[in-house]
Order: sequence, then C-alpha cells, then structure tokens
Amino acid sequence: MDFTIRAATLEDCEDIRRMMSELAEYQKVADQVTITQKDLEQDGFSKKPFFHAIITEVPEQHKTKDGHTKIGYSIYFYTYSSWKGRAVFMEDLYVMPEFRGKGIGKALMSKIAQLRDILMFLKCLLGRAAGCTQLNFTVLNWNKTALDFYQNQGSVDVTSDLGYHYMCCHGDAFQKMADSDP
Amino acid sequence: MDFTIRAATLEDCEDIRRMMSELAEYQKVADQVTITQKDLEQDGFSKKPFFHAIITEVPEQHKTKDGHTKIGYSIYFYTYSSWKGRAVFMEDLYVMPEFRGKGIGKALMSKIAQLRDILMFLKCLLGRAAGCTQLNFTVLNWNKTALDFYQNQGSVDVTSDLGYHYMCCHGDAFQKMADSDP
Repeated sequence: MDFTIRAATLEDCEDIRRMMSELAEYQKVADQVTITQKDLEQDGFSKKPFFHAIITEVPEQHKTKDGHTKIGYSIYFYTYSSWKGRAVFMEDLYVMPEFRGKGIGKALMSKIAQLRDILMFLKCLLGRAAGCTQLNFTVLNWNKTALDFYQNQGSVDVTSDLGYHYMCCHGDAFQKMADSDP
Repeated sequence: MDFTIRAATLEDCEDIRRMMSELAEYQKVADQVTITQKDLEQDGFSKKPFFHAIITEVPEQHKTKDGHTKIGYSIYFYTYSSWKGRAVFMEDLYVMPEFRGKGIGKALMSKIAQLRDILMFLKCLLGRAAGCTQLNFTVLNWNKTALDFYQNQGSVDVTSDLGYHYMCCHGDAFQKMADSDP
C-alpha cells in the first residue's frame, strides 16, 4: 500500500490528538490523558517546540470508513544519555489497526533514526558535534506484538536486562517537591 | 552542613565527568560510559544545549580527601508526555557517598521541580503556555536506597505499576534502522 511520511504541521494536531486517544484506549490508560489539541498546537509548533512529530498519510482511495487519511504518527524529541551523549526519545509510535503489518511502523521509526544523519550533515555544515547515537522509548510489557516488533529491529529491553525502572513524580508530589526550599 | 546549588558552567564539566564515572561504577555500568568531558562541554554549553546541569558545592573546610568541593550534580532536559504535556527528565542525580543523608539529593531534585514555576513565570511574561507537570527518571530496581528515596518524595514506579519497560536501540541496530529506506 502506498503511504507517505512527512513532518507534521499545525493542521495535523486534530488527527494526532485523535490517534493519541486511540493509542491510550489500546494501552488501557485513556483516563490518564489530559492533553488537548491546543496543548499540542502550542507546544509542538511554537518557535521553541517541546516535541517534533511526523505523520503518515494514505491516498484517498485507502481512507478509513470514517474518512481518515492520516493513519499513523510518531512524536519524538532530543534527549541526552550520560553514558553515550545525544539521543532521541520516541514518545509515541502509532499506526491505526487496519493499516498494521504493512511496514508503516518500521518506516516511521526509520525516519526518526535518520535524524542522526541529518544532524551529522549539520555537523559538516555548521561545525557542530556528531548526531544522536541511540533511540529510547517505553513499551508496555504485556504488549507482546509491540515488544516483538521493537526487538526485531534490534532494540534492547533495558528494564529486563539491567533492571532500570521508569519513574514519575507528578501531581501533588511534584508540587510538594517544587515547594520544598533547598 | 552548608552547601550551595547553582547552574553548572563549562568549568564544571571536568567534575561532572568525574562524578558520572563514580555513578556508573556504583551502578555497575562503567563499561557503558563512553561520553567525554569534551562531549559535555559541546552538548551542554552551546547555544542550543542538549541538556542542562546543576551542581552542588560545599565550602573548602568540607572538601573531600582528594580535594573536591563539587560533590553532587544533576543533569536534566525538557521532554514531552503525550498524556500530560510538558515534562522534565532527570537523567542523573548524584551525591558523593560521604555527603549523603544530608538532604542534598532532595534539594537537587527540588531545584529541578521548581523549574516548572520558572516556566509559569515566563508564561505570564511572554504569554507562553504553562510549565511542566511531571518529572521522569529511571532507577535501578536493585538500588533500594534510591527507590526508597524517590518513593518517599511521592514518585511512582511506572514500570511496576503499569508495566512500562524502558527500551533502547543503539549501535548496529540503530545504524540499520537509519539505513532502511522507508
């Protein structure tokens, strides 16, 4: 099936928010998602964006029964590893169920990995340091399809292999932490 | 004990790199760390830094037997949660062993949580959206002291509670992913 991948624009935020809900439903965490389309518009498409996004589109003839042609996306941002240096974190990778198994997920991931090469190109151009050396993300341990998919691409489960647990401090605890005077 | 926390500068990179090695030794991952002092200088202190760092200093009279007064640090950067929006990721939090149990770790973490308020202040000033709502990080599951410390601050173990595993694609696998043509 034909599909294209391109950088997302402001006009894609409605579809990204829709697909974020679909992903959260699938991951059984829909109640956790409070982000709005406006948040995405502000945070991803201002002068200093907090994230970047790419989107997959299919031609009109393959649109879903609800009329959608934007059928997959990925959200990522640059991070830093104190072991290896520059890195990319893939926050979301999603392809609508009826379009899975066609190489779209792999193509989205590949696009993000290629950013390293873009950074390396910039290095030559601007004298900046080399690009990213790794891609990080999280996956639900009960989602065998996703785990298999990522491991088939050579990804390593850092939690299983080394015991790293992902932690979060939010809500009142985060407020309290900010309020305590060091 | 008196201590101060301040934003790190280029001149702190030697000490940050030294403490990164100490942290990696403690975490039994010293062989994984390939980052250099020069990487830190380039990546953290250019016009578009990949990370931010804060450092703890003690007065001369409390210096270590090796003469160090810079005895703790934290590295962090802004990330994005597709559930909640703007977030901070704390890549490292380290206090030299002889200075633990004095509230320095908590003070470093608190400093990072306060960044949310700084962002909120900027919102009023610049009309930007509200600041970060959560702090994320990883911790080794065998490091009970660290786990207890973080949980005492109200942090939640997302891996244990929801099953999220932290994944990494690097080296040849990352190269191969970038090379595959979507």
